[in-house]
Amino acid sequence: MKSPPLFTALLEALEQLPGIGKKSAERIGFYLLNNREVGENLSQALRTALDNLGHCRICGNITEGEVCKICSSPSRDKTVICVVETPMDIYAIEKTGIYNGLYHVLGALISPLDGKGPEDINIDGLLKRIEGVKEIILAIKPSTEGDATSMYLAEILKKKGVSVSRLARGLPVGSELELTDPLTIINAIKNRSRL
Amino acid sequence: MKSPPLFTALLEALEQLPGIGKKSAERIGFYLLNNREVGENLSQALRTALDNLGHCRICGNITEGEVCKICSSPSRDKTVICVVETPMDIYAIEKTGIYNGLYHVLGALISPLDGKGPEDINIDGLLKRIEGVKEIILAIKPSTEGDATSMYLAEILKKKGVSVSRLARGLPVGSELELTDPLTIINAIKNRSRL
Repeated sequence: MKSPPLFTALLEALEQLPGIGKKSAERIGFYLLNNREVGENLSQALRTALDNLGHCRICGNITEGEVCKICSSPSRDKTVICVVETPMDIYAIEKTGIYNGLYHVLGALISPLDGKGPEDINIDGLLKRIEGVKEIILAIKPSTEGDATSMYLAEILKKKGVSVSRLARGLPVGSELELTDPLTIINAIKNRSRL
Repeated sequence: MKSPPLFTALLEALEQLPGIGKKSAERIGFYLLNNREVGENLSQALRTALDNLGHCRICGNITEGEVCKICSSPSRDKTVICVVETPMDIYAIEKTGIYNGLYHVLGALISPLDGKGPEDINIDGLLKRIEGVKEIILAIKPSTEGDATSMYLAEILKKKGVSVSRLARGLPVGSELELTDPLTIINAIKNRSRL
Protein backbone atom coordinates (compact mmCIF):
# COMPACT_ATOMS: atom_id res chain seq x y z
CA MET A 1 0.00 0.00 0.00
CA LYS A 2 1.26 3.45 -0.90
CA SER A 3 0.50 6.51 1.18
CA PRO A 4 -2.12 8.98 -0.13
CA PRO A 5 -0.59 11.24 -2.85
CA LEU A 6 -1.28 14.39 -0.83
CA PHE A 7 0.62 12.92 2.07
CA THR A 8 3.51 11.94 -0.18
CA ALA A 9 3.54 15.53 -1.49
CA LEU A 10 3.77 16.85 2.06
CA LEU A 11 6.65 14.50 2.87
CA GLU A 12 8.48 15.53 -0.28
CA ALA A 13 8.06 19.21 0.60
CA LEU A 14 9.39 18.56 4.11
CA GLU A 15 12.40 16.68 2.75
CA GLN A 16 13.50 19.86 0.96
CA LEU A 17 14.21 21.50 4.32
CA PRO A 18 17.81 21.60 5.54
CA GLY A 19 18.64 18.83 7.99
CA ILE A 20 15.41 16.96 7.27
CA GLY A 21 15.87 13.51 5.76
CA LYS A 22 13.33 10.90 4.71
CA LYS A 23 12.80 9.61 8.24
CA SER A 24 12.42 13.01 9.87
CA ALA A 25 10.05 14.12 7.11
CA GLU A 26 7.84 11.09 7.80
CA ARG A 27 7.90 11.75 11.51
CA ILE A 28 7.04 15.42 11.07
CA GLY A 29 4.41 14.68 8.42
CA PHE A 30 2.51 12.26 10.63
CA TYR A 31 2.91 14.59 13.57
CA LEU A 32 1.41 17.52 11.63
CA LEU A 33 -1.66 15.48 10.75
CA ASN A 34 -2.06 13.99 14.19
CA ASN A 35 -1.61 17.34 15.95
CA ARG A 36 -3.75 19.57 13.79
CA GLU A 37 -3.28 22.70 15.86
CA VAL A 38 0.49 22.44 15.31
CA GLY A 39 -0.13 21.94 11.58
CA GLU A 40 -2.57 24.86 11.35
CA ASN A 41 -0.21 27.06 13.32
CA LEU A 42 2.71 26.26 11.02
CA SER A 43 0.57 26.62 7.90
CA GLN A 44 -0.56 30.11 8.93
CA ALA A 45 2.83 31.27 10.20
CA LEU A 46 4.52 30.10 7.02
CA ARG A 47 1.91 31.66 4.72
CA THR A 48 2.05 34.98 6.57
CA ALA A 49 5.85 34.96 6.67
CA LEU A 50 6.13 34.23 2.95
CA ASP A 51 3.59 36.91 2.14
CA ASN A 52 5.05 39.63 4.33
CA LEU A 53 8.73 39.05 4.91
CA GLY A 54 11.39 40.02 2.43
CA HIS A 55 14.97 41.21 2.29
CA CYS A 56 16.03 44.68 3.35
CA ARG A 57 16.82 46.56 0.14
CA ILE A 58 19.87 48.13 1.79
CA CYS A 59 21.61 45.29 3.62
CA GLY A 60 19.75 42.10 2.65
CA ASN A 61 18.62 41.27 6.19
CA ILE A 62 15.17 39.74 6.71
CA THR A 63 12.55 42.42 7.23
CA GLU A 64 8.84 43.11 7.27
CA GLY A 65 9.14 46.48 5.55
CA GLU A 66 11.36 47.81 2.78
CA VAL A 67 14.24 48.55 5.12
CA CYS A 68 15.20 46.48 8.17
CA LYS A 69 15.23 47.71 11.76
CA ILE A 70 19.01 47.83 11.89
CA CYS A 71 19.40 49.96 8.75
CA SER A 72 16.62 52.30 9.87
CA SER A 73 17.78 52.62 13.48
CA PRO A 74 19.14 56.07 14.38
CA SER A 75 21.27 54.60 17.17
CA ARG A 76 23.41 52.35 14.98
CA ASP A 77 26.91 53.40 13.98
CA LYS A 78 26.70 54.01 10.24
CA THR A 79 30.46 54.20 9.76
CA VAL A 80 31.01 50.45 10.24
CA ILE A 81 29.61 47.68 8.06
CA CYS A 82 29.91 44.04 9.01
CA VAL A 83 29.79 41.77 5.95
CA VAL A 84 28.16 38.36 6.48
CA GLU A 85 27.09 35.46 4.30
CA THR A 86 23.47 35.09 5.46
CA PRO A 87 20.87 36.89 7.61
CA MET A 88 21.39 34.06 10.15
CA ASP A 89 24.88 35.41 10.77
CA ILE A 90 23.41 38.82 11.62
CA TYR A 91 21.30 37.21 14.35
CA ALA A 92 24.30 35.34 15.70
CA ILE A 93 26.28 38.57 16.00
CA GLU A 94 23.32 40.59 17.33
CA LYS A 95 22.88 38.06 20.15
CA THR A 96 26.31 39.00 21.49
CA GLY A 97 25.28 42.63 21.91
CA ILE A 98 28.87 43.73 21.25
CA TYR A 99 28.38 45.22 17.78
CA ASN A 100 26.47 48.40 17.01
CA GLY A 101 27.26 49.04 13.36
CA LEU A 102 25.42 48.06 10.19
CA TYR A 103 25.47 44.81 8.21
CA HIS A 104 25.68 43.64 4.64
CA VAL A 105 24.47 40.22 3.51
CA LEU A 106 26.36 38.65 0.60
CA GLY A 107 23.82 35.87 0.11
CA ALA A 108 26.49 33.37 -0.93
CA LEU A 109 30.25 32.83 -1.05
CA ILE A 110 32.60 32.64 -3.98
CA SER A 111 32.92 28.94 -4.76
CA PRO A 112 34.26 27.99 -8.19
CA LEU A 113 33.51 24.32 -7.51
CA ASP A 114 29.81 25.16 -7.14
CA GLY A 115 29.97 27.51 -10.10
CA LYS A 116 29.65 30.60 -7.93
CA GLY A 117 31.81 33.54 -8.89
CA PRO A 118 32.03 37.15 -7.63
CA GLU A 119 29.01 38.06 -9.79
CA ASP A 120 26.85 35.70 -7.72
CA ILE A 121 27.36 37.51 -4.43
CA ASN A 122 26.00 40.92 -3.51
CA ILE A 123 29.20 42.96 -3.91
CA ASP A 124 27.70 45.80 -5.97
CA GLY A 125 25.25 46.57 -3.17
CA LEU A 126 28.16 46.79 -0.76
CA LEU A 127 30.23 49.06 -2.98
CA LYS A 128 27.29 51.47 -3.22
CA ARG A 129 27.29 51.78 0.56
CA ILE A 130 30.91 52.57 1.33
CA GLU A 131 30.67 56.35 1.24
CA GLY A 132 31.34 57.67 4.75
CA VAL A 133 32.17 54.17 6.00
CA LYS A 134 35.36 53.95 8.09
CA GLU A 135 35.67 50.21 8.50
CA ILE A 136 34.33 47.09 6.90
CA ILE A 137 34.52 43.98 9.06
CA LEU A 138 34.47 40.73 7.09
CA ALA A 139 32.62 38.26 9.31
CA ILE A 140 32.76 35.38 6.87
CA LYS A 141 33.32 31.81 7.95
CA PRO A 142 36.87 30.47 7.92
CA SER A 143 36.66 27.95 5.08
CA THR A 144 38.11 27.70 1.59
CA GLU A 145 35.12 29.51 0.09
CA GLY A 146 34.93 31.97 2.96
CA ASP A 147 38.60 32.87 2.72
CA ALA A 148 38.44 33.22 -1.06
CA THR A 149 35.51 35.59 -0.66
CA SER A 150 37.23 37.58 2.08
CA MET A 151 40.42 37.96 0.07
CA TYR A 152 38.50 39.03 -3.01
CA LEU A 153 36.44 41.59 -1.09
CA ALA A 154 39.44 42.92 0.83
CA GLU A 155 41.29 43.59 -2.41
CA ILE A 156 38.41 45.52 -3.99
CA LEU A 157 37.56 47.44 -0.84
CA LYS A 158 41.13 48.45 -0.06
CA LYS A 159 41.43 49.87 -3.57
CA LYS A 160 38.45 52.06 -2.71
CA GLY A 161 40.31 53.31 0.35
CA VAL A 162 38.16 51.63 3.01
CA SER A 163 39.77 50.03 6.03
CA VAL A 164 39.03 46.29 6.03
CA SER A 165 39.33 43.79 8.88
CA ARG A 166 38.23 40.23 9.46
CA LEU A 167 37.23 38.28 12.57
CA ALA A 168 40.06 36.90 14.69
CA ARG A 169 41.03 33.26 14.41
CA GLY A 170 42.11 31.20 17.38
CA LEU A 171 40.85 28.77 19.99
CA PRO A 172 37.11 28.82 20.63
CA VAL A 173 36.14 29.19 24.29
CA GLY A 174 35.89 25.84 26.07
CA SER A 175 37.98 23.98 23.53
CA GLU A 176 40.49 21.25 24.39
CA LEU A 177 43.89 21.76 22.81
CA GLU A 178 44.34 18.04 22.22
CA LEU A 179 41.08 17.91 20.24
CA THR A 180 41.74 21.07 18.25
CA ASP A 181 42.65 20.80 14.57
CA PRO A 182 46.20 21.79 13.55
CA LEU A 183 45.10 24.79 11.46
CA THR A 184 43.28 26.34 14.39
CA ILE A 185 46.32 25.83 16.61
CA ILE A 186 48.54 27.41 13.94
CA ASN A 187 46.17 30.41 13.82
CA ALA A 188 46.13 30.61 17.61
CA ILE A 189 49.93 30.62 17.77
CA LYS A 190 50.34 33.13 14.96
CA ASN A 191 47.74 35.48 16.46
CA ARG A 192 48.82 35.02 20.08
CA SER A 193 48.36 38.08 22.24
CA ARG A 194 50.92 39.49 24.67
CA LEU A 195 49.87 39.38 28.34
CA MET B 1 17.84 43.98 17.54
CA LYS B 2 15.01 41.48 17.62
CA SER B 3 13.86 39.56 14.57
CA PRO B 4 10.59 40.66 12.89
CA PRO B 5 7.55 39.33 14.83
CA LEU B 6 6.29 37.37 11.81
CA PHE B 7 9.63 35.65 11.58
CA THR B 8 9.61 34.87 15.30
CA ALA B 9 6.12 33.41 14.85
CA LEU B 10 7.40 31.16 12.06
CA LEU B 11 10.32 29.98 14.19
CA GLU B 12 7.99 29.24 17.11
CA ALA B 13 5.70 27.24 14.84
CA LEU B 14 8.68 25.25 13.51
CA GLU B 15 9.91 24.55 17.04
CA GLN B 16 6.67 22.69 17.73
CA LEU B 17 7.68 19.98 15.27
CA PRO B 18 9.18 16.77 16.63
CA GLY B 19 12.98 16.73 16.56
CA ILE B 20 13.21 20.44 15.72
CA GLY B 21 14.96 22.55 18.36
CA LYS B 22 15.65 26.26 18.48
CA LYS B 23 18.72 26.02 16.24
CA SER B 24 17.10 23.83 13.59
CA ALA B 25 14.02 26.05 13.56
CA GLU B 26 16.21 29.09 12.88
CA ARG B 27 18.05 27.27 10.14
CA ILE B 28 14.84 26.07 8.50
CA GLY B 29 13.14 29.46 8.94
CA PHE B 30 15.91 31.34 7.18
CA TYR B 31 16.07 28.67 4.53
CA LEU B 32 12.34 28.92 3.80
CA LEU B 33 12.61 32.66 3.26
CA ASN B 34 15.79 32.46 1.23
CA ASN B 35 14.48 29.64 -0.95
CA ARG B 36 10.99 30.83 -1.67
CA GLU B 37 10.03 28.00 -3.98
CA VAL B 38 10.73 25.54 -1.14
CA GLY B 39 8.65 27.68 1.21
CA GLU B 40 5.77 27.99 -1.26
CA ASN B 41 5.88 24.30 -1.97
CA LEU B 42 5.70 23.41 1.71
CA SER B 43 3.01 25.99 2.38
CA GLN B 44 0.78 24.55 -0.35
CA ALA B 45 1.48 20.92 0.44
CA LEU B 46 0.75 21.48 4.12
CA ARG B 47 -2.44 23.46 3.46
CA THR B 48 -3.74 20.84 1.02
CA ALA B 49 -2.79 17.98 3.34
CA LEU B 50 -4.51 19.58 6.34
CA ASP B 51 -7.62 20.32 4.28
CA ASN B 52 -7.93 16.92 2.65
CA LEU B 53 -6.30 14.26 4.76
CA GLY B 54 -7.97 12.68 7.77
CA HIS B 55 -8.12 9.42 9.62
CA CYS B 56 -9.84 6.34 8.24
CA ARG B 57 -13.06 5.90 10.20
CA ILE B 58 -12.51 2.16 10.39
CA CYS B 59 -8.85 1.71 11.29
CA GLY B 60 -7.49 5.21 12.02
CA ASN B 61 -4.92 5.17 9.20
CA ILE B 62 -4.23 8.39 7.30
CA THR B 63 -6.53 8.69 4.29
CA GLU B 64 -7.85 11.09 1.70
CA GLY B 65 -11.38 9.71 1.79
CA GLU B 66 -13.59 8.35 4.57
CA VAL B 67 -12.03 4.90 4.45
CA CYS B 68 -8.37 4.14 3.74
CA LYS B 69 -7.05 2.09 0.83
CA ILE B 70 -6.20 -0.85 3.04
CA CYS B 71 -9.66 -1.11 4.63
CA SER B 72 -11.36 -0.74 1.26
CA SER B 73 -9.08 -3.13 -0.63
CA PRO B 74 -10.78 -6.37 -1.70
CA SER B 75 -7.46 -8.21 -1.72
CA ARG B 76 -6.64 -7.77 1.97
CA ASP B 77 -7.27 -10.59 4.43
CA LYS B 78 -10.09 -9.35 6.63
CA THR B 79 -9.66 -12.10 9.20
CA VAL B 80 -6.45 -10.64 10.63
CA ILE B 81 -6.03 -7.26 12.31
CA CYS B 82 -2.65 -5.85 13.21
CA VAL B 83 -2.90 -3.38 16.10
CA VAL B 84 -0.41 -0.50 16.03
CA GLU B 85 0.17 2.71 17.97
CA THR B 86 0.33 5.18 15.06
CA PRO B 87 -0.26 5.34 11.29
CA MET B 88 3.56 5.53 10.95
CA ASP B 89 3.74 1.96 12.19
CA ILE B 90 1.39 0.88 9.38
CA TYR B 91 3.80 2.29 6.82
CA ALA B 92 6.74 0.56 8.48
CA ILE B 93 4.95 -2.79 8.27
CA GLU B 94 3.60 -2.17 4.75
CA LYS B 95 7.14 -1.53 3.52
CA THR B 96 8.06 -5.12 4.38
CA GLY B 97 5.35 -6.47 2.06
CA ILE B 98 4.92 -9.53 4.31
CA TYR B 99 1.56 -8.67 5.82
CA ASN B 100 -1.74 -8.69 3.96
CA GLY B 101 -4.30 -8.23 6.72
CA LEU B 102 -5.98 -5.12 8.12
CA TYR B 103 -4.75 -2.65 10.71
CA HIS B 104 -6.04 -0.83 13.73
CA VAL B 105 -4.47 2.36 15.07
CA LEU B 106 -4.69 2.89 18.84
CA GLY B 107 -3.51 6.51 18.64
CA ALA B 108 -1.67 6.26 21.97
CA LEU B 109 -0.48 3.77 24.57
CA ILE B 110 -1.63 3.21 28.13
CA SER B 111 0.72 5.28 30.25
CA PRO B 112 -0.39 6.08 33.81
CA LEU B 113 2.60 8.41 34.27
CA ASP B 114 1.34 10.59 31.41
CA GLY B 115 -2.23 10.29 32.67
CA LYS B 116 -3.24 8.04 29.78
CA GLY B 117 -5.56 5.16 30.65
CA PRO B 118 -7.40 2.55 28.57
CA GLU B 119 -10.11 5.14 27.82
CA ASP B 120 -7.57 7.27 25.95
CA ILE B 121 -6.75 4.66 23.33
CA ASN B 122 -9.03 3.48 20.56
CA ILE B 123 -10.07 0.12 22.04
CA ASP B 124 -13.82 0.47 21.45
CA GLY B 125 -13.21 0.84 17.73
CA LEU B 126 -11.19 -2.38 17.79
CA LEU B 127 -13.81 -4.35 19.74
CA LYS B 128 -16.43 -3.36 17.17
CA ARG B 129 -14.31 -4.95 14.46
CA ILE B 130 -13.59 -8.39 15.90
CA GLU B 131 -16.52 -10.23 14.37
CA GLY B 132 -15.18 -12.75 11.89
CA VAL B 133 -11.59 -11.95 12.86
CA LYS B 134 -9.41 -15.00 13.48
CA GLU B 135 -6.29 -13.36 14.82
CA ILE B 136 -5.25 -10.04 16.25
CA ILE B 137 -1.53 -9.29 16.08
CA LEU B 138 -0.34 -6.75 18.62
CA ALA B 139 2.47 -4.84 16.89
CA ILE B 140 3.13 -2.47 19.75
CA LYS B 141 6.60 -1.34 20.70
CA PRO B 142 8.41 -3.26 23.45
CA SER B 143 8.45 -0.66 26.23
CA THR B 144 6.80 -0.30 29.64
CA GLU B 145 3.81 1.50 28.10
CA GLY B 146 3.74 -0.77 25.08
CA ASP B 147 3.78 -3.92 27.17
CA ALA B 148 1.12 -2.56 29.55
CA THR B 149 -1.08 -1.81 26.55
CA SER B 150 -0.45 -5.21 24.97
CA MET B 151 -1.25 -7.05 28.20
CA TYR B 152 -4.43 -5.06 28.71
CA LEU B 153 -5.62 -5.62 25.14
CA ALA B 154 -4.72 -9.31 25.18
CA GLU B 155 -6.80 -9.86 28.30
CA ILE B 156 -9.89 -8.16 26.88
CA LEU B 157 -9.57 -9.76 23.45
CA LYS B 158 -9.01 -13.27 24.75
CA LYS B 159 -12.20 -12.95 26.81
CA LYS B 160 -13.98 -12.22 23.55
CA GLY B 161 -12.59 -15.46 22.14
CA VAL B 162 -10.18 -13.92 19.59
CA SER B 163 -6.74 -15.40 19.12
CA VAL B 164 -4.10 -12.80 20.08
CA SER B 165 -0.39 -12.72 19.24
CA ARG B 166 2.38 -10.19 19.54
CA LEU B 167 5.54 -9.54 17.51
CA ALA B 168 8.54 -11.71 18.34
CA ARG B 169 11.33 -10.35 20.51
CA GLY B 170 14.96 -11.10 19.93
CA LEU B 171 18.10 -9.84 18.28
CA PRO B 172 17.60 -7.29 15.50
CA VAL B 173 19.37 -8.17 12.25
CA GLY B 174 22.92 -6.84 12.14
CA SER B 175 23.25 -6.42 15.90
CA GLU B 176 26.40 -7.12 17.88
CA LEU B 177 25.84 -9.35 20.89
CA GLU B 178 28.35 -7.42 22.99
CA LEU B 179 26.44 -4.17 22.36
CA THR B 180 22.99 -5.63 22.93
CA ASP B 181 21.13 -4.77 26.14
CA PRO B 182 20.58 -7.61 28.67
CA LEU B 183 16.78 -7.64 28.30
CA THR B 184 17.02 -8.21 24.56
CA ILE B 185 19.49 -11.04 25.12
CA ILE B 186 17.17 -12.57 27.72
CA ASN B 187 14.31 -12.39 25.19
CA ALA B 188 16.51 -13.89 22.49
CA ILE B 189 17.48 -16.81 24.73
CA LYS B 190 13.94 -17.42 25.96
CA ASN B 191 12.52 -17.33 22.45
CA ARG B 192 15.37 -19.23 20.82
CA SER B 193 14.32 -21.37 17.88
CA ARG B 194 15.35 -24.93 17.25
CA LEU B 195 17.45 -25.49 14.12
